[in-house]
Amino acid sequence: MPRPITFWFEFASTYSYLSAMRIDAEAEARGVEVIWNPFLLGPIFKAQGWDTSPFSIYPEKGENMWRDMQRRAEKYGIPFNRSAERLFPQNSVLAARAAIACLHEDWGRDFCRGVFRAAFTEGRDISDADTIADCIETAGGLPQIHMKMAYSNTQKAALRANVETARSRGIYGAPSFIVDDELFWGDDRLEDALEWAIRV
Amino acid sequence: MPRPITFWFEFASTYSYLSAMRIDAEAEARGVEVIWNPFLLGPIFKAQGWDTSPFSIYPEKGENMWRDMQRRAEKYGIPFNRSAERLFPQNSVLAARAAIACLHEDWGRDFCRGVFRAAFTEGRDISDADTIADCIETAGGLPQIHMKMAYSNTQKAALRANVETARSRGIYGAPSFIVDDELFWGDDRLEDALEWAIRV
Repeated sequence: MPRPITFWFEFASTYSYLSAMRIDAEAEARGVEVIWNPFLLGPIFKAQGWDTSPFSIYPEKGENMWRDMQRRAEKYGIPFNRSAERLFPQNSVLAARAAIACLHEDWGRDFCRGVFRAAFTEGRDISDADTIADCIETAGGLPQIHMKMAYSNTQKAALRANVETARSRGIYGAPSFIVDDELFWGDDRLEDALEWAIRV
Repeated sequence: MPRPITFWFEFASTYSYLSAMRIDAEAEARGVEVIWNPFLLGPIFKAQGWDTSPFSIYPEKGENMWRDMQRRAEKYGIPFNRSAERLFPQNSVLAARAAIACLHEDWGRDFCRGVFRAAFTEGRDISDADTIADCIETAGGLPQIHMKMAYSNTQKAALRANVETARSRGIYGAPSFIVDDELFWGDDRLEDALEWAIRV
């Protein structure tokens, strides 16, 4: 019996975008259930002594990541616009809080994919409330209801709890996948994680 | 016409070990020529402000790397012994100098794979001259000749030049693969790099 996979993602993370576009189809093909869990890397990076993304701190690493993203996106047939580099890394707090609210709805994952697309194909600022409201509407939600939820203490507390859980599970980057007690890091480990989930 | 791929590896690097065991067969299956280039990550890490491997600096990252290595080695059918963690990261200067000398010989790649196996399956100290001499002998070389070469100024200079070339090509980790002007980082990008080499 396949075990569920928990998908830990960060809206500012380039490779989380690739996984967000791939995971549901790859999981469905294997009969694996996916649980989507947004979190924030900022507090985790801060605990490692970084005040921004390592891709910004180490220029060679960053340069190669953007090139690798172009190549990988092409390989997977996922649209990607390198001009997203201009706003990288984005402040994803509002998007993550909204996602926690929206993921209770049928269209929650469409909302998440819409936010990633806004960031990585349209170069939009996802810390802007208008962007998030547009993504809610496009996904099928009601901005006046779901934006209010995004700003509520419930989602703030839930996001804080997610970050705390991520840290306690040993997560140090995004995307990460957890199956049973196994932690897999990186979009390039998505298939490994899914194979683990169906391993007997 | 496939272009050659340059394989940049570091004997202290766990994922370089996986690539060293995989690359020749994967390249041959695609008709791609491989050039093996040992280098040292130490000077490159130092320039990034690290005095050791990031897997040692960031414990969560390190813990997951060792677990991931076990899983990946199992997937590829490559022997791996996590007790190698005890000596990690090893001083690989002597091994790299010896490799530069040995790679002129038919058995040079066997020597390199032997050093990786000594480090990652037998837990041997590869900074120890006896280990390197054993690896030379097992691969088919003459320790009394090739050890002398390893200590010569020629190999010292060649290794320094390799590190300088690696840095100038934007290499910041190991293994790395270069095809044309494309840089691929990580054992998990080996297939991408080889596909690039046969791309028309």
